[in-house]
Amino acid sequence: MDESPHPYIPTDLKLPGYVPISMSMSSILTIYLGTSLFVVSVVWFLFGRKKASLDKLLMCWWAFTGLTHMILEGYFVFSPEFYKNNTSCYLAEVWKEYSKGDSRYVGRDSAVIAVEGITAVIEGPASLLAVYAIAKGKSYSYVLQLAISLGQLYGCLVYFITAFLEGDNFATNDFYYYSYYIGANCWWVLIPLLISFRCWKKICAATTTVETKPVTKKKIR
Amino acid sequence: MDESPHPYIPTDLKLPGYVPISMSMSSILTIYLGTSLFVVSVVWFLFGRKKASLDKLLMCWWAFTGLTHMILEGYFVFSPEFYKNNTSCYLAEVWKEYSKGDSRYVGRDSAVIAVEGITAVIEGPASLLAVYAIAKGKSYSYVLQLAISLGQLYGCLVYFITAFLEGDNFATNDFYYYSYYIGANCWWVLIPLLISFRCWKKICAATTTVETKPVTKKKIR
Repeated sequence: MDESPHPYIPTDLKLPGYVPISMSMSSILTIYLGTSLFVVSVVWFLFGRKKASLDKLLMCWWAFTGLTHMILEGYFVFSPEFYKNNTSCYLAEVWKEYSKGDSRYVGRDSAVIAVEGITAVIEGPASLLAVYAIAKGKSYSYVLQLAISLGQLYGCLVYFITAFLEGDNFATNDFYYYSYYIGANCWWVLIPLLISFRCWKKICAATTTVETKPVTKKKIR
Repeated sequence: MDESPHPYIPTDLKLPGYVPISMSMSSILTIYLGTSLFVVSVVWFLFGRKKASLDKLLMCWWAFTGLTHMILEGYFVFSPEFYKNNTSCYLAEVWKEYSKGDSRYVGRDSAVIAVEGITAVIEGPASLLAVYAIAKGKSYSYVLQLAISLGQLYGCLVYFITAFLEGDNFATNDFYYYSYYIGANCWWVLIPLLISFRCWKKICAATTTVETKPVTKKKIR
């Protein structure tokens, strides 16, 4: 099979049938950010009416992260040969581009696939459920948001620790290392951390209130 | 360096300086189960007085799993050369033995080290905190137990998925596969699942009660 030279590190990574990326970085980013802005706007103005600003903001985050998990990361998980794609399919282009920041994607590292699989299959749909839960004020809203956020944090930990243990040398250059590997992922550390703290506090407040001043006859523990 | 033949799969796994296991399986298990029984008894009879049976049982689980995470798994994470140990150190023997069920331990697979690292460093101490939280009826008791259980489940998922993706062929034979790889780990799937369901239900009940019937003037959302 033909083997085109690829831009990934390590340079001796075998990618038989590799088809070079055809979209520019700016096109890929513009489509991603544009679509995300559209999703966020729809949620903010359409589903978020009558909601407090923080709730609207959280609904936007869960819609954005849920669709990213399901569509972008879901495509990666279930398309092991995306690097051979020659149709300029947007999703394949995204992962060809992102792999410049972490070649374990194009190299199908099993820890990366495991984390991305859990993220796409469990956390993606759960994130969309969180949009609904906040919109409807469901009782499981905080605990669901906490569970997903902790999952995202656990995934990031596995992602960064495995890279570190394997030499932390999977980026084409420093630019891709800091912009893709660090820059793109840090939001999935920072925001889940903030949401976890908030939900933890809310849940503790609710548990304390119920346990110290029972309002129903039903014994709750 | 000398290279003794080892019992692990794949047979061509390189383990320079490997020192064969010196304790029998029954001795290793007897010490583990005996110590665990001692820990569980101390918690049940000493710390669990005046507590409901289910709370006592949970305290026993968290003490047992916390110490297993910190001591057994902690030793594995921070002793990369345990297979060279020639002092019959019990903890090294445990991992030489367990590696018959999953040679990724002796082979220092990065996904296994990442999961075990998170388990030993974060979930271990958090489990002991859960013993205290249940004993003292702290408001964060349920949310803490849920967080640790979800972490244990996430860890198990990564553990099993990465093995599957890499061919699921790391056991010396079927006996070790089913008794160690499946048998020993299934408890860390089953029990965290049960605890997660219980805590989820308790938290939702508390949140619902507080949100529908506020008992304090403090606004909770």
